[in-house]
Amino acid sequence: MVEKRAICLLSGGLDSCVSAAIAKKQDYSLYALTFEYGQQHQREVQSAQQIAESLQVQEHIVFPLDLKQFQGSSLVDDTQEIPDASSLDRIGVTIPSTYVPARNTIFLSIALALAEVKEADAIFIGVNEVDYSGYPDCRPEYIKAFQAMADLATKKAVEGKKTLIETPLLHLSKKEIIKKGVEVNAPYYFSWSCYRGEEQACGQCESCLLRLKGFQDAGVADPLIYQSYPDWYTQNK
Amino acid sequence: MVEKRAICLLSGGLDSCVSAAIAKKQDYSLYALTFEYGQQHQREVQSAQQIAESLQVQEHIVFPLDLKQFQGSSLVDDTQEIPDASSLDRIGVTIPSTYVPARNTIFLSIALALAEVKEADAIFIGVNEVDYSGYPDCRPEYIKAFQAMADLATKKAVEGKKTLIETPLLHLSKKEIIKKGVEVNAPYYFSWSCYRGEEQACGQCESCLLRLKGFQDAGVADPLIYQSYPDWYTQNK
Repeated sequence: MVEKRAICLLSGGLDSCVSAAIAKKQDYSLYALTFEYGQQHQREVQSAQQIAESLQVQEHIVFPLDLKQFQGSSLVDDTQEIPDASSLDRIGVTIPSTYVPARNTIFLSIALALAEVKEADAIFIGVNEVDYSGYPDCRPEYIKAFQAMADLATKKAVEGKKTLIETPLLHLSKKEIIKKGVEVNAPYYFSWSCYRGEEQACGQCESCLLRLKGFQDAGVADPLIYQSYPDWYTQNK
Repeated sequence: MVEKRAICLLSGGLDSCVSAAIAKKQDYSLYALTFEYGQQHQREVQSAQQIAESLQVQEHIVFPLDLKQFQGSSLVDDTQEIPDASSLDRIGVTIPSTYVPARNTIFLSIALALAEVKEADAIFIGVNEVDYSGYPDCRPEYIKAFQAMADLATKKAVEGKKTLIETPLLHLSKKEIIKKGVEVNAPYYFSWSCYRGEEQACGQCESCLLRLKGFQDAGVADPLIYQSYPDWYTQNK
């Protein structure tokens, strides 16, 4: 049997953890790719390493990317504070301040280069429309356009070999993602979602709320301990 | 009058020098972007700085990019030697070993992010079909696909504002590029094309040959001094 290889974008967060575990379940040999781009949540890189190890990847590439030069997002700009998500209802209505310009485009481009070097058949990325929450580069039409561009971009493409952009979570809700992760044995214990990056997850930022809501809806216990929990979470426990 | 802004990809080479000079001629305010990616021809970054200064850019961003991790191209792999171009006829027939996987895709993606941050209207890149010489990411259909993807990728795009990928040299021969450069007052004296990166340009690698042939065909003197010249160049002088 010919070995199938996949580049797995691994942020250390929950979605990319599930996405990589799905690739593993599909018998791909994994090459994990994590970007170190001056996140406030540096903690995520550590988590990515633990997830990579847990999934027994062939190689884990940590790629430094100096996006601090691109001020304007609170995820890379030290001078901005990460906002509290005051209510779940407001998530997804506007493009959040945690938006980093062209982030997925940059990440997928570098993954495409790596796919050529490692002779990988696919790139797995954990984008989904719920996480869209205003991020333009998490939409299905964006992914389709990236695939069309990738099909023309490389030596490999000229030779007629495709690099598939695989987005197994694209149409799933957080609840479905978490159920899927249980199915494929995703190492949730090592995943990290909090935007604030303290010792413990805050339980108050947009990312923590989406995660807690997902676990609650899926009827699965989140193995992480949070600093504090929203009322709706503890009341329904 | 509203200020028009352009991100100009500036490698230090001849084509990007002309491309940026065209943007200036079109009354754009220039933001030059140069990638430092472990080129054997580090000399190019110096040249880019001199060109940027000469074109009076608003800002010159030198972006470090650790492409050494992606072995396989002689432009970033220290263990491979840059090949001599034994004859001009062979140029463009196959994909050369100086190919870097997905290079223009990575460069354009980062330029797209910068365009959003700087509120630029356009990205100028000096790709052309002669320089295609087997590079898949210098073809018109590739650029078109990148534009389609970019139109979906950013917050700016969602708000209905386009970032134009401008490729003023796309369909020009080297001869026409060099004539165009004279027209727009491109600072040729600072541009550098040699793949080998010594004190003087070698006059033997593919890039030197294409440049010398272009100047000869255009009837313009190349202000650079070469280590040696191919016979066909000196015989026709």
